[in-house]
Amino acid sequence: MRNIKKEIRIVGFDDSPFIPRSKGKVPVIGVVFRGGNFLDGILKTDISIDGMDATDTLIKIINESRHKKQLRVIMLKGITIGGFNIINIHQLYEKTGLPVVVVNRKMPNLEDIKSALKNLDDFENRWECIEDAGKIYKMKIEKNKNIYFQFKGLKKEEVERIIKLSCTRSLIPEPLRVAHLIASALIKGESEGRA
Amino acid sequence: MRNIKKEIRIVGFDDSPFIPRSKGKVPVIGVVFRGGNFLDGILKTDISIDGMDATDTLIKIINESRHKKQLRVIMLKGITIGGFNIINIHQLYEKTGLPVVVVNRKMPNLEDIKSALKNLDDFENRWECIEDAGKIYKMKIEKNKNIYFQFKGLKKEEVERIIKLSCTRSLIPEPLRVAHLIASALIKGESEGRA
Repeated sequence: MRNIKKEIRIVGFDDSPFIPRSKGKVPVIGVVFRGGNFLDGILKTDISIDGMDATDTLIKIINESRHKKQLRVIMLKGITIGGFNIINIHQLYEKTGLPVVVVNRKMPNLEDIKSALKNLDDFENRWECIEDAGKIYKMKIEKNKNIYFQFKGLKKEEVERIIKLSCTRSLIPEPLRVAHLIASALIKGESEGRA
Repeated sequence: MRNIKKEIRIVGFDDSPFIPRSKGKVPVIGVVFRGGNFLDGILKTDISIDGMDATDTLIKIINESRHKKQLRVIMLKGITIGGFNIINIHQLYEKTGLPVVVVNRKMPNLEDIKSALKNLDDFENRWECIEDAGKIYKMKIEKNKNIYFQFKGLKKEEVERIIKLSCTRSLIPEPLRVAHLIASALIKGESEGRA
């Protein structure tokens, strides 16, 4: 296993709330953390609701970031963002050179996602991204509390270590928890709920 | 001295960058921290550039916050925000019931501020807020590194303890450092510089 440092630089992304099936753009916030403790920086961009631009937009904002050289991992909360704008984690990995960790609080229901995707253009393309994201693993964070993850560019044991060291304050890694707080406050005026 | 807990809830505000002397609104971000460690929530509002609405807007967003009951201190980076929109710290204290701590990296040059204010309407009103904010104290954070502060509703020793316990990561209290990162990323796409 590669050496995973306690202060490993992680960027975690989350989107703002929006009205499902509406048109237009939704803000996406990236939060750069050193491990689970120190907030180093913030990225902001916009993607199209139910669009196909999430992967390219994230690649661009990551590669242009002043934190790029320090970054070691990209974290996502699921591989859909801005509705059904699907993130291709292989492309994200290849075009940034950074491993990707996808975290879910619940086991994603792929059949439900598949049905929803059938209402959108580019069904094949979107569904392929989801199938290609690979096996979903379960990990116990606390007693009776599991999270689910997928990954690209790391070993499973490395991913588990990164998730554990970044969940300093809750059952969700800090970069994702804080990205959620910021992204929701932008639209609602105040952050809400859990990450 | 009152008991200042290590996890005292602080909300710190900062504004986004904008073009000086332009018209319109500027975003203001509030960050709720427990002491200097745990980011609890985010507030977002807008104020008028060089306007007179900062005090009322902050009072409203603080009083309406879900964190209000837990909050113990308001932190500001200077008493001007959105250009020369001056915060009346007495009103802020009285109408929220929360003490106010104003932190500056440099000793504010009151004569420069006074000259600039003369170009704006309501000069008397604005200047009064600045004079009423009271004495500016110096505090050593590290060797050769000072910050300057004013306050309302606390004892000087309490303010010093709050500043010390919240400067966990830099020479600026965490709520203000992170508010700056978020507020600047909103406009620039990525956070920049120091808080």
